[in-house]
Amino acid sequence: MKISIIGTGTVGQAIAARLTQLGNEVMLGTRNVKEKLSSDAKDSYGNPSFSEWHKSNTGVKLGTFEEAARFGEIVINATNGGSSIAALKLAGAANLSGKILIDIANPLDFSKGMPPSLLPGLNNTNSLGEEIQKTFPGAKVVKTLNTMWCGLMVNPGLIGGGEHINYICGNDDAAKAEVKRLLVQIGWKNENLLDIGDISGARASESLLPIWLRVMGSIQTGVFNFRLIR
Amino acid sequence: MKISIIGTGTVGQAIAARLTQLGNEVMLGTRNVKEKLSSDAKDSYGNPSFSEWHKSNTGVKLGTFEEAARFGEIVINATNGGSSIAALKLAGAANLSGKILIDIANPLDFSKGMPPSLLPGLNNTNSLGEEIQKTFPGAKVVKTLNTMWCGLMVNPGLIGGGEHINYICGNDDAAKAEVKRLLVQIGWKNENLLDIGDISGARASESLLPIWLRVMGSIQTGVFNFRLIR
Repeated sequence: MKISIIGTGTVGQAIAARLTQLGNEVMLGTRNVKEKLSSDAKDSYGNPSFSEWHKSNTGVKLGTFEEAARFGEIVINATNGGSSIAALKLAGAANLSGKILIDIANPLDFSKGMPPSLLPGLNNTNSLGEEIQKTFPGAKVVKTLNTMWCGLMVNPGLIGGGEHINYICGNDDAAKAEVKRLLVQIGWKNENLLDIGDISGARASESLLPIWLRVMGSIQTGVFNFRLIR
Repeated sequence: MKISIIGTGTVGQAIAARLTQLGNEVMLGTRNVKEKLSSDAKDSYGNPSFSEWHKSNTGVKLGTFEEAARFGEIVINATNGGSSIAALKLAGAANLSGKILIDIANPLDFSKGMPPSLLPGLNNTNSLGEEIQKTFPGAKVVKTLNTMWCGLMVNPGLIGGGEHINYICGNDDAAKAEVKRLLVQIGWKNENLLDIGDISGARASESLLPIWLRVMGSIQTGVFNFRLIR
């Protein structure tokens, strides 16, 4: 399957590598392809530059936001939440229309210090997932994978035998079912994919970020998730 | 120990019964004692009236908010979040000063339909826990127990061998340590009491309510919690 990922950070890279490994054709979308490939700068977390990563992931295509959105049968939003709407507008509403748009971003606001809060207007009674759905009504937005470290997104078996939760929500049941199949391919167990309803469920899953960040601060690692106990 | 609980709903009742069973002297605080004891009305969830409950829990004292706050060496806020500040003001700042005030309430806003959001001004960059601490600077506010059904608060062993999380936060380390001792008495294991820092951690634990409510809607029971997997 042709899958495109908007955003070339560590999250986009992790997903691109895994989806390629699973036999999909993957294109990463970026603002400026030439600049992205020529920069040697490490990211703000000290990770290698994109061009360095790309040398060992040559199977992953790179295009503009627009080229990527046009390429993918499924499009994944892996930009940072504050830039998502702008990046997706550059990708082009027409290129997203009729497609599944998997939103894994979070509307984090770092402007008020650490730990970040959620962006004004995109919390509590609204969410990034809903805002994307409203802005691109032709896309079938499915929110998932936004509540864990990217290493776990693509390899849930890394901890606890993979027995931990990944929330999923969206307005289109067929789109959710297809995303679930993709998640199972990646390594998630069906019984750990917890459907929390329509896209307004993104209010709830994005609201997990504050506690996720506090727990990370408390246990000093991001390699954790939560299991539902009942 | 003398412990008072502000609020006589099912949460207050569950905690009062458990703390009494453990040998504490417990007083529940209410707005109007006479009215509370004379009413036969079931609550909005169809639970028996307070007076009915009290007949089989005669060891639990009942007083006004003020009498209860004066009585307790530790005070527990078990009112609904939208009424907490007003109820605690009636309890009296002087009666709370120097004491541990355990806040287990959530600032739920039902005015916009179901599932509820969090109250304006008490979410994202603020919280009920912080607002209580700001309003009653003499009290040592400790936020805990607000992220699960009340039956689990007082009997965590009911599911998963008690292996699930209870968050705790507050500005006073000695107060948190004392509350942890009380929680262990109740049945919580020390290793499941996750300290998420000062009282601003309440932003994070109160932010769990949206996902808690969605999960309850999805699995059709409130008898669940989350285990940290790492």
